[in-house]
Amino acid sequence: FARTPRPAFGLPAHTTRMTITHTTCQAMDRADPLAFARLRFSLPDGAIYLDGNSLGALPKSTVARLAGAVQEEWGQGLIRSWNQANWVGLPRVVGDRIAALLGAAPGEVVAADSTSVNIFKLLAAAVDMAMKSDAARKVVISERGNFPTDLYMVQGLQAMLGTIELRLVDDGGIADALDGSVAVALVTQVDYRSGRMLDMGDLNRRARQAGSRILWDLSHSAGAIPVNLNAAGAELAVGCGYKYLNGGPGAPAYVYVRSDLQPSLSSPLCGWFGHAAPFAFSTQFVPAPGIERFQCGTPSILAMQALDCGLATFDNIEMAALRAKSLALSDLFWQLMDARCAKFGFRCVSPRDHASRGSQLSFAHPHAYEIMQALIERGVIGDFRQPDLLRFGFTPLYTRFEDIWLAVDVLAEIMQSAAWQNEQYRHRNAVT
Amino acid sequence: FARTPRPAFGLPAHTTRMTITHTTCQAMDRADPLAFARLRFSLPDGAIYLDGNSLGALPKSTVARLAGAVQEEWGQGLIRSWNQANWVGLPRVVGDRIAALLGAAPGEVVAADSTSVNIFKLLAAAVDMAMKSDAARKVVISERGNFPTDLYMVQGLQAMLGTIELRLVDDGGIADALDGSVAVALVTQVDYRSGRMLDMGDLNRRARQAGSRILWDLSHSAGAIPVNLNAAGAELAVGCGYKYLNGGPGAPAYVYVRSDLQPSLSSPLCGWFGHAAPFAFSTQFVPAPGIERFQCGTPSILAMQALDCGLATFDNIEMAALRAKSLALSDLFWQLMDARCAKFGFRCVSPRDHASRGSQLSFAHPHAYEIMQALIERGVIGDFRQPDLLRFGFTPLYTRFEDIWLAVDVLAEIMQSAAWQNEQYRHRNAVT
Repeated sequence: FARTPRPAFGLPAHTTRMTITHTTCQAMDRADPLAFARLRFSLPDGAIYLDGNSLGALPKSTVARLAGAVQEEWGQGLIRSWNQANWVGLPRVVGDRIAALLGAAPGEVVAADSTSVNIFKLLAAAVDMAMKSDAARKVVISERGNFPTDLYMVQGLQAMLGTIELRLVDDGGIADALDGSVAVALVTQVDYRSGRMLDMGDLNRRARQAGSRILWDLSHSAGAIPVNLNAAGAELAVGCGYKYLNGGPGAPAYVYVRSDLQPSLSSPLCGWFGHAAPFAFSTQFVPAPGIERFQCGTPSILAMQALDCGLATFDNIEMAALRAKSLALSDLFWQLMDARCAKFGFRCVSPRDHASRGSQLSFAHPHAYEIMQALIERGVIGDFRQPDLLRFGFTPLYTRFEDIWLAVDVLAEIMQSAAWQNEQYRHRNAVT
Repeated sequence: FARTPRPAFGLPAHTTRMTITHTTCQAMDRADPLAFARLRFSLPDGAIYLDGNSLGALPKSTVARLAGAVQEEWGQGLIRSWNQANWVGLPRVVGDRIAALLGAAPGEVVAADSTSVNIFKLLAAAVDMAMKSDAARKVVISERGNFPTDLYMVQGLQAMLGTIELRLVDDGGIADALDGSVAVALVTQVDYRSGRMLDMGDLNRRARQAGSRILWDLSHSAGAIPVNLNAAGAELAVGCGYKYLNGGPGAPAYVYVRSDLQPSLSSPLCGWFGHAAPFAFSTQFVPAPGIERFQCGTPSILAMQALDCGLATFDNIEMAALRAKSLALSDLFWQLMDARCAKFGFRCVSPRDHASRGSQLSFAHPHAYEIMQALIERGVIGDFRQPDLLRFGFTPLYTRFEDIWLAVDVLAEIMQSAAWQNEQYRHRNAVT
């Protein structure tokens, strides 16, 4: 089992798979140069949280920030805080912070709405631009296994316009499906089930050759892997604020549009916060010159401040170091699964190759649902994904190597004792 | 100056306009049966807040609720709170609370997104339905003076579809403009500038006769006046959570669709939270059977909880009593303006007739901007609206009769001393 050694992470060179122990993992934590970042979070005692890819943990700073936003800015400042506390500028302030994580320039990202709504904005704008220059370019392609809401938003646009076609391709099939009919490929960089990561630079090059555009969904990559939007030639992207960005449940999402494209893209959801002069109260919409045009209605200021705190957990953290730790965590998990759970019928569906792996591992098992319920009850929080996946996310800001040990240890115990067969785990009420 | 007497509010019968004093107003507060509701809010000392129509004040309960949502539900419960804290059901829970305020049935309202985004959903759905039954019905009418974002959202839809026409009419001109070409009239019940209130039942009847639908924007009416959607025959409505509903800056907005219409209306913004089975992760969008179909992406749970607290400030409050107090407050303001500020050139642009008056008064003045700045600096917080309006909102849950006295008193002093002419008030940096 080959793993590229990375400085300061992972197992000591003399350790073989058979000799990994709880103590080894604790030693890895002591050697972890990012261990301090865990102190930025408030985590429940006695839980091993491996679901930061679904909902990021609570940053400690969020508590005081929200209390201040509520009691001082809203309660005392009231309407004056739109100016005095710069509420009006917050979507850009937060957007610029996100841009820094994504290898984008200030002014290329704005925090706004939900990922779904933002997909609609950029998809509609990009399709419109494509069809205006070539009416035959009316196809949106996406992977069949893309996150459902991405596909649903295309379907909504399709039902509305009647002119576009949604063409679904098998996972990994985007590159080959790019041709002269494709206006936009809606592509999620890291697959929410398998954690498979696509090569952004390569796909962007191929899209350029085909005359198509790619709208990237970074929901499962931003904050977990190095995303270098500008360097990779990305034009359009959206993403989620509540996973690796730690913005809180249902946090605002974001929009990235490369600066040169901004003037020629128009969001059909052109609410007053996207206006060049929102408070002139003019009758005619005039888009803001920059990324602000991709805002729509009044932003949720409380949610925006929580997102800002989530982003602050990345302060002074190198994305390369995060990535190295993320891979070390998932390598360790996989290795321990091989060593301790091989006989229980788990099949890892995530890429073994580092270059194709996001920050999660998913294991197929016929009883995935029940096993995950048993794990959660024992404080090991991953999640279940249809049809048969146990999903474990690794958030290098707060996941410890010891957590990996403990998680696999609990799983081995559940399998050994067949505890998952308990009646209580059968009811399928999983929500997220 | 005729005013319908209402029990328990307003001036004693023997009082004439000339004899209203600070003491009279304090007596009105002592006799106010709703005075207790002010205790539900946290208001800044030394400020007279007459801008609850732009941003409602902070309910006291919001502070602890948000702290609990952040520290317990998010911090401790993490992903489990989607089920265990019923985050997933919150948009409906909050929607049902709003429905109760609006004379709608449970299951007819859902909290979601922003007012702008919700306008787009319902407008697109209603236009689609109209054009499918009659292709000639492709006009959206709205008042020229409607809140800008309402008009902008029509413009966005228009640019996208290319098939619809936006026809602007003068204020008050909706009824006469309804004809066989009109698919939808987008109508704000209470005008954001003048506070003029339209007769919802009458307009709905006229729309039915014309075969058109009305999409009501309740942003400036919900929580301030009795809105009886079902009784008034309303089919579609949206509104804002951060004004009279006290949900906090940029609070989630809401969608109302009369229950019988829900199955036949499809939102083009069909994100996963609008799916019949969001967590089945199916490839094809299938709308939820009820009002949930008008949700889109993942809702902001923190913002949703703050909105829930805002709505709780209406617990055990009769809307008729709120309305009576609202009118008594605006009557008093107007009367004091006549008595003390008549000579300074203010012209009230709000309806004198109670049946046409919302919960605010607006006064035109050539130096409205500077005067409002001087007022705000002295702690009397109203707002300025283009081109020349001083706007004062009355939120009967927390505005006192004494506040009205003090506000007019400060204004009279500013005008008497010409304090507004001070250089510092000239810079036009008003935001909201």
